[in-house]
Amino acid sequence: MSTPADDTHALTLERIIDAPPALLYRAWTEPELIKQWFTPRPWSVASAETDVRPGGATLIVMRSPEGEDFPNRGVYLEVVPNRRLVFTDAFTEAWLPSGKAFMVVTISFEDLGGQTRYTATVRHWTEADRAQHEAMGFHAGWGKATDQLAELVATLPR
Amino acid sequence: MSTPADDTHALTLERIIDAPPALLYRAWTEPELIKQWFTPRPWSVASAETDVRPGGATLIVMRSPEGEDFPNRGVYLEVVPNRRLVFTDAFTEAWLPSGKAFMVVTISFEDLGGQTRYTATVRHWTEADRAQHEAMGFHAGWGKATDQLAELVATLPR
Repeated sequence: MSTPADDTHALTLERIIDAPPALLYRAWTEPELIKQWFTPRPWSVASAETDVRPGGATLIVMRSPEGEDFPNRGVYLEVVPNRRLVFTDAFTEAWLPSGKAFMVVTISFEDLGGQTRYTATVRHWTEADRAQHEAMGFHAGWGKATDQLAELVATLPR
Repeated sequence: MSTPADDTHALTLERIIDAPPALLYRAWTEPELIKQWFTPRPWSVASAETDVRPGGATLIVMRSPEGEDFPNRGVYLEVVPNRRLVFTDAFTEAWLPSGKAFMVVTISFEDLGGQTRYTATVRHWTEADRAQHEAMGFHAGWGKATDQLAELVATLPR
């Protein structure tokens, strides 16, 4: 089958993190851990639910410093424990279209022997959405959240 | 987890077909069978490729009576042999966003003991896309294709 070019309006963050992939995978999938790093402070996570399997739904409610809640719904497309997670906001549950198909997020954990090459690739359906996501502060926001992620996993037992 | 209302801009076709689910499933998944019914004549199918698994890609090239080819790419989201197929044009392959997230198609085969309750539910991301799909002739087109599907499966060995 021919392969379409990957012209998918991507934003990317890559980081070497001083923890093994299994801890980063836990931090991405366990609600009690998600709450501790997912939103750049002073934002917080009011609640987190994850059904970690292809077709499983996720709901993370982000809370602003003023106390306003922003629910983020998504569905997992691919789950490879300790290696790779793919999810999208294009569905609210399997397989109902959401209000808007905005992004597909691929999180990869490459084992470097104690450390992890951590890559987040966020693809969009349109260039306008990519540009808007970047203008909304993708790099600063995901960068700060990733700092918090790295701090959290440093505290977890190996 | 709370369930969002299913306000997903659906178009539906339901039909009782005089064949068991397994034959209808074959007609939906085997390229040589797809070519025989998928496009309302005088349109035809120039080629069909199916990788029938969650995350597998499909490419069906529809050919107009004037000989113009229209490739239709999609990805399977859910595959339950002889029961249920879900696919979408929102991805060109797992998991790259397509040029447009237009529809999610759920095909259900309910065994009625020799006959099948056949249901196609086509959900859209926007009401405008649903209305456009209907105006383009969804009911006539899918209806005629389903006639051709029923004729084909009647010729297959049970």
